Amino acid sequence: MNQYQERLDKIRDYMVREGIDLVMFEDAEGKRDAGIRWLTGHPRDALLFLFFEPESTVHTAAVTEKHGSASALKSLLVPWDINLAKAYSTADVLIPYSDFDRIPIKAITGAAEKLKIPHGAKIEIPPLTPYPVFLDYISELTDFDIICRKRSAVSYTQNCRAVKDSEEIAIYRKAAKITNKIIDLVEKNVRSGKIKTEADAAMFIELESRKRGCDGTGFETIAAGQDRSFGIHAFPAWTGAPFAGQGLSILDFGLSLGGYTTDVTMTFVRDPFPQQQKMVNLVEKAVKLAVETLVNGYDTKLTAIVIDEIFTKQKKRMVHAAGHGIGLDPHELPFIKCRSEENWILSPGMVFALEPGLYDPIYGGCRLENDFLMTETGCEKLTDAKIVYL
Amino acid sequence: MNQYQERLDKIRDYMVREGIDLVMFEDAEGKRDAGIRWLTGHPRDALLFLFFEPESTVHTAAVTEKHGSASALKSLLVPWDINLAKAYSTADVLIPYSDFDRIPIKAITGAAEKLKIPHGAKIEIPPLTPYPVFLDYISELTDFDIICRKRSAVSYTQNCRAVKDSEEIAIYRKAAKITNKIIDLVEKNVRSGKIKTEADAAMFIELESRKRGCDGTGFETIAAGQDRSFGIHAFPAWTGAPFAGQGLSILDFGLSLGGYTTDVTMTFVRDPFPQQQKMVNLVEKAVKLAVETLVNGYDTKLTAIVIDEIFTKQKKRMVHAAGHGIGLDPHELPFIKCRSEENWILSPGMVFALEPGLYDPIYGGCRLENDFLMTETGCEKLTDAKIVYL
Repeated sequence: MNQYQERLDKIRDYMVREGIDLVMFEDAEGKRDAGIRWLTGHPRDALLFLFFEPESTVHTAAVTEKHGSASALKSLLVPWDINLAKAYSTADVLIPYSDFDRIPIKAITGAAEKLKIPHGAKIEIPPLTPYPVFLDYISELTDFDIICRKRSAVSYTQNCRAVKDSEEIAIYRKAAKITNKIIDLVEKNVRSGKIKTEADAAMFIELESRKRGCDGTGFETIAAGQDRSFGIHAFPAWTGAPFAGQGLSILDFGLSLGGYTTDVTMTFVRDPFPQQQKMVNLVEKAVKLAVETLVNGYDTKLTAIVIDEIFTKQKKRMVHAAGHGIGLDPHELPFIKCRSEENWILSPGMVFALEPGLYDPIYGGCRLENDFLMTETGCEKLTDAKIVYL
Repeated sequence: MNQYQERLDKIRDYMVREGIDLVMFEDAEGKRDAGIRWLTGHPRDALLFLFFEPESTVHTAAVTEKHGSASALKSLLVPWDINLAKAYSTADVLIPYSDFDRIPIKAITGAAEKLKIPHGAKIEIPPLTPYPVFLDYISELTDFDIICRKRSAVSYTQNCRAVKDSEEIAIYRKAAKITNKIIDLVEKNVRSGKIKTEADAAMFIELESRKRGCDGTGFETIAAGQDRSFGIHAFPAWTGAPFAGQGLSILDFGLSLGGYTTDVTMTFVRDPFPQQQKMVNLVEKAVKLAVETLVNGYDTKLTAIVIDEIFTKQKKRMVHAAGHGIGLDPHELPFIKCRSEENWILSPGMVFALEPGLYDPIYGGCRLENDFLMTETGCEKLTDAKIVYL
């Protein structure tokens, strides 16, 4: 459980630097924040409050001075399901959400009272707080200085999560191994005809992942047979339709292990038309050149731009990002896209998926997605998804 | 497709009444809004703009007068996946999101320009817009009067969706029939020993639902065997653990048909301890009495309070809501809970799930959930989930 304290210490640095007395995280339906899990182990549906030891909590202006290096950061978890929290959470204090009628504003008030947060203290609420709700907060929590901004403990946590620690990397190596085994098995079963439909593919992965110790899939498997692969994310994600017939079929899946998901996409190619073969060749070329840009210190935009240029030269266009970090969320930092507002510099510990793809309303789609880990010595390919020629 | 125009007309009424020239809806990862699907048929990942015929769009102050009864409401969809939109959407105009670099603020600016929305016009953005993002909008969209409030076209749409129209009710009758068939089959297969594990139960439902014409499950099936039923929503949702052994096992699932999900929970009881039997009896009693309160014109709070009182008398406490509307989202309006900020009056067309449950960290949990439809002549029970004694 040591990693949780290390993670809290990072947020503590942020709070000291910013002079913040109390931080709130929220994870709920419609506003998920895996940061709570990352910080406490509690999987979902809770508020999390981070605070300094009550005796040393002081007025904002003095936080930096007082908390310089001595007092530890503590955590108060307010879970929807207290039984689940008792089983999973490492938080210092637990109070059931129902004690606050499951209303965030009551929970903030209650937490501030319980933790003896003094009047005038700086309380940071999540950056996703809707504007109309923010107005409620400031009109009701008049005793405190309520802060809501993009640069926040929540975003700081997301940034921290972009670089995995040793526990997380160990999980990823294991998850990648299982993912690769399933990639092999799927290929074999498609070749042998055991997997004939989208449902066959999706169900096979669902069952095999759990058999092999995973929590299950990290997101809904997308199995799009030749008639449905034109969509970036086929809708519905899978059906009883045929899979891996003439043309291009896409299989996009991830395995979740200890909450961390892999994310890979295979494309199955059978008797392709020249237009289909051209798409596949372009995607393979894009992957090859993009991988060469996965170097510590390089900006991820470069990777995205390389892919973009290859497609643009052939008058094709990729309508989604080139890649994304993976972790407790299937999409997390770093971004790998041409027009990111921020710069993401590749550095050791980053784990991400790269996923060049092209989609045509008539000829279907082709995507090749694999997961990579940056280490001190360079980029390590974790997964072995491929274009499978049938 | 007629129902889409009828739905747009409702939002038109709202816009005329409020003097709003342009409304934006957003559906994206982390901020889902099934309203876009309800209004256009497009399943997910898009912005939707609703506007009056360009030639008749005028300055805010005059909207009510000008749009009194003549001009129709039109829709501009900005989808992430244009191919998907072409297949599903009934929107009047389509522009790929990538034309705006997939950045909402660029899309608003672009839409306003394309639709010739005049300076000073009232543009309503979604009520979930985070406060820091709202600040960006108002600082960049200085030509317009940007409105962001709880009472909005988005919330108005959610309210409209609480009462299903005839197309939706027809879907629900069909979905309920399939759900009931699967309830029967699951019971049989548990009794025969064909379903032995949580995975068996979850996979059986996943496959059967699609075989019988559903899109799949409406949310991740929760199969919590006797050792894991203590959690309201077991985590992970299902594993390879044994199911329906001594004690209480919970199976919570829903089938999605045309996007609309049912939501039922069965509890399997085998050789219960007296404490377990007592929980089951209480839940069954709560259901029985609660159902008697499902009467047109009654406030849903009454239903929730009746359940609450039964449990409280026995010193038990239900830590989740008593029920909720179902539809394109597995949880939607109306609320059925004691401490709802709004009053929800039962009325014809409402479709909802009622789900009394009790959970004990030692003895496990029991929940019984079924779906109901309010009709002109009263309450109709759609589904037949039950407590199964083994």
